[in-house]
Amino acid sequence: MTTPLRLGIAGLGTVGTGVVRIIQNHAGLLAARSGRTITISAVSARSKGKDRGVKLDAYAWEDDPVALAQRDDVDVFVEVIGGSEGPAKLSTEAAIAASKDVVTANKALLALHGQELAEAAEAQGLLIRFEAAVAGGIPAIKALTEGLAGNEITRVMGVMNGTCNYILTRMESAGLPYETVFEEARALGYLEADPNLDVGGIDAGHKLSLLSAIAFGTRVDFANVELEGIGAISIEDIRQAADMGFRIKLLGVAQMTGRGLEQRMSPCLVPASSPLGQLQGGTNMVVLEGDSVGQIVLRGAGAGSGPTASAVISDVIDIARGNRLSTFGQPARTLRAARAAKAAVPAPYYLRMQLIDKPGALAKVARVLGDGGISIDRMRQYGHEDTTAPVLIVTHKTTRSALDEALEGFSATGVVAAPTVAIRIEAV
Amino acid sequence: MTTPLRLGIAGLGTVGTGVVRIIQNHAGLLAARSGRTITISAVSARSKGKDRGVKLDAYAWEDDPVALAQRDDVDVFVEVIGGSEGPAKLSTEAAIAASKDVVTANKALLALHGQELAEAAEAQGLLIRFEAAVAGGIPAIKALTEGLAGNEITRVMGVMNGTCNYILTRMESAGLPYETVFEEARALGYLEADPNLDVGGIDAGHKLSLLSAIAFGTRVDFANVELEGIGAISIEDIRQAADMGFRIKLLGVAQMTGRGLEQRMSPCLVPASSPLGQLQGGTNMVVLEGDSVGQIVLRGAGAGSGPTASAVISDVIDIARGNRLSTFGQPARTLRAARAAKAAVPAPYYLRMQLIDKPGALAKVARVLGDGGISIDRMRQYGHEDTTAPVLIVTHKTTRSALDEALEGFSATGVVAAPTVAIRIEAV
Repeated sequence: MTTPLRLGIAGLGTVGTGVVRIIQNHAGLLAARSGRTITISAVSARSKGKDRGVKLDAYAWEDDPVALAQRDDVDVFVEVIGGSEGPAKLSTEAAIAASKDVVTANKALLALHGQELAEAAEAQGLLIRFEAAVAGGIPAIKALTEGLAGNEITRVMGVMNGTCNYILTRMESAGLPYETVFEEARALGYLEADPNLDVGGIDAGHKLSLLSAIAFGTRVDFANVELEGIGAISIEDIRQAADMGFRIKLLGVAQMTGRGLEQRMSPCLVPASSPLGQLQGGTNMVVLEGDSVGQIVLRGAGAGSGPTASAVISDVIDIARGNRLSTFGQPARTLRAARAAKAAVPAPYYLRMQLIDKPGALAKVARVLGDGGISIDRMRQYGHEDTTAPVLIVTHKTTRSALDEALEGFSATGVVAAPTVAIRIEAV
Repeated sequence: MTTPLRLGIAGLGTVGTGVVRIIQNHAGLLAARSGRTITISAVSARSKGKDRGVKLDAYAWEDDPVALAQRDDVDVFVEVIGGSEGPAKLSTEAAIAASKDVVTANKALLALHGQELAEAAEAQGLLIRFEAAVAGGIPAIKALTEGLAGNEITRVMGVMNGTCNYILTRMESAGLPYETVFEEARALGYLEADPNLDVGGIDAGHKLSLLSAIAFGTRVDFANVELEGIGAISIEDIRQAADMGFRIKLLGVAQMTGRGLEQRMSPCLVPASSPLGQLQGGTNMVVLEGDSVGQIVLRGAGAGSGPTASAVISDVIDIARGNRLSTFGQPARTLRAARAAKAAVPAPYYLRMQLIDKPGALAKVARVLGDGGISIDRMRQYGHEDTTAPVLIVTHKTTRSALDEALEGFSATGVVAAPTVAIRIEAV
């Protein structure tokens, strides 16, 4: 057995303590599998005194994660602080400057600074590994970077924010409005301090941008992820979608098209019977499609101490085993700049509108769609509520721009009482 | 860029030609990702003249795969011949003797000879990689060996024979008996030359034994996989199971218990709404459970040229990247001999019996179960057919030995007209 691999762990929250726990409980197993003893030299967190339910007294303590990253007795810097700036970024930069490999669970950091961090690390022959940053315990980064490395990747999809999926499935199962379930989720501690990171799709968008970079050999381009949160999804849409055999998911989709790289994180309708449609509660799913392999579906816990720590440890074991893989699966300097697709590929859309009770109202709406080249696949009109009637339309494939024009056209008809809801239907 | 990695491909059937195709079509992609050019030096198959739809004239030809394995211009020997003995085994041994890394899709070879082959390879610092041997394009070996390496694995499950899953789902969807669908599958070319490899569970059992070795750090022990094929599954059982919310799958289960390693490949009832229950047709699924990560589900094509070749290439790229992993995730000489569990852990069972129309018949059967300590969860009796009535029972958890005693006891009652069908219900 060779020399031990010595970790410095920055951040002792849910993930950090999970990592400590695995290393303490499974020392023999990890050594048998990696061929090296894996030890912890030092740890760092904001408050030293706090009881975290794990024994830490055998490890040196650093108040400053930058100092931790620079210690001579640290081979691998494990960054589980979180946040795209501040201590997480400073200490990761310090670790690279001090010639340490880095394992991180930090999607925000890599989504915003991944390119320069990877280039800096690779210039010194160092690694940045981030399995834990995407879809928690699911080995999605490894599946894409290594398991499917022989494929031209055609599409990557994912439900990668457990909180949003919890909210959407709870709305459906309990028949509760968004606002009520949002407050429940907050009370349960499921939401980030800034809830918009979750429900605005930002956190999941960060993850999608990392998958895109690997899949398409392009620089991480979070700025061009089209983001739409779940805040506008009503219980009515969830019910109507269910009635037509669909479920609404906050779905990330990345694909390389003739017009550039398309990256979207937005609510979509997917067939209720599909693996994505079946996904309940906080579970995550990543769907990878390649020209040879077809469709691979990966499902598991997307968050939590154990699952996320499991992913961190898999990166640590890879390093212990000598697996020296580039951050994004190929040298960072060889990644191409992504040309962002201006518009999403055409898709069918679900439309829900409030039609004013006037003769010829439906014909007017249908004419707007027809004039825009949008044909109707299915339509349902329900009984009137006071002076308006809910109308549901599923279109055939159309572009979002044609649809947006039609939505504007609806207003001009004078027969639509409220803004029309439009949700993309993704073929999964 | 360093020197090219040169392959010798033995076997040019579905998988071999798929590998050639990926290397020809994706040369640039593979080089970008692996940092080396991947080339083919030579190929080998039984008949040289055959048109295989790929250009082979740039490669040297060897009639004998052993000669291929020994060529100086081959760095990695790709064995896609198949079969546990004969040319596949001889050429793999020759490759190791000639200091070549090996990539194989051969589950039978590794299930029967994996231990000695891995020891021979590792004694020379060589690799045997076999992602393609289990569940086709699904990166299941990688997920288990690397992605979940920080976990004590608690259970591994899988539907890993697409032909059996095709037969079972087709029986249900078309309402056809086993024999009819079996002949359909034969006509479609889905069955091995010896169909018992598929429907007897042997092929899937080989795969399970390989997963077990990695999961539990034990020597491959195919001889102790409890095998039961799907030949006895009737359309009646499929219908009754569906009616109670279950589907019947040829399910592999491996788990380490207090009484040793349990490995089973047998028809089981699983909830129709579970990911395993939802699996239709030839698709494969592997379920991995670890103490930290919880349950990870992997789904994809289990066979076919593209998916299997995708898995072969992922192993080749790993070698090109310098990822030097032991065959079973830890050195073969450190694997423990598996102590086989004598009996499966208790489970509920589904029983279907033909009760003779006599007063007190049901009471007699119920008494046999009660005397054996087996309690009844659900029971259904249907209308009489002539002089017998079908009775369905779902038991609470019981051991297989208690159940077997009860099944014998049924005969002694004189009220059971035919052998009782008993199928395990697996909690998935």
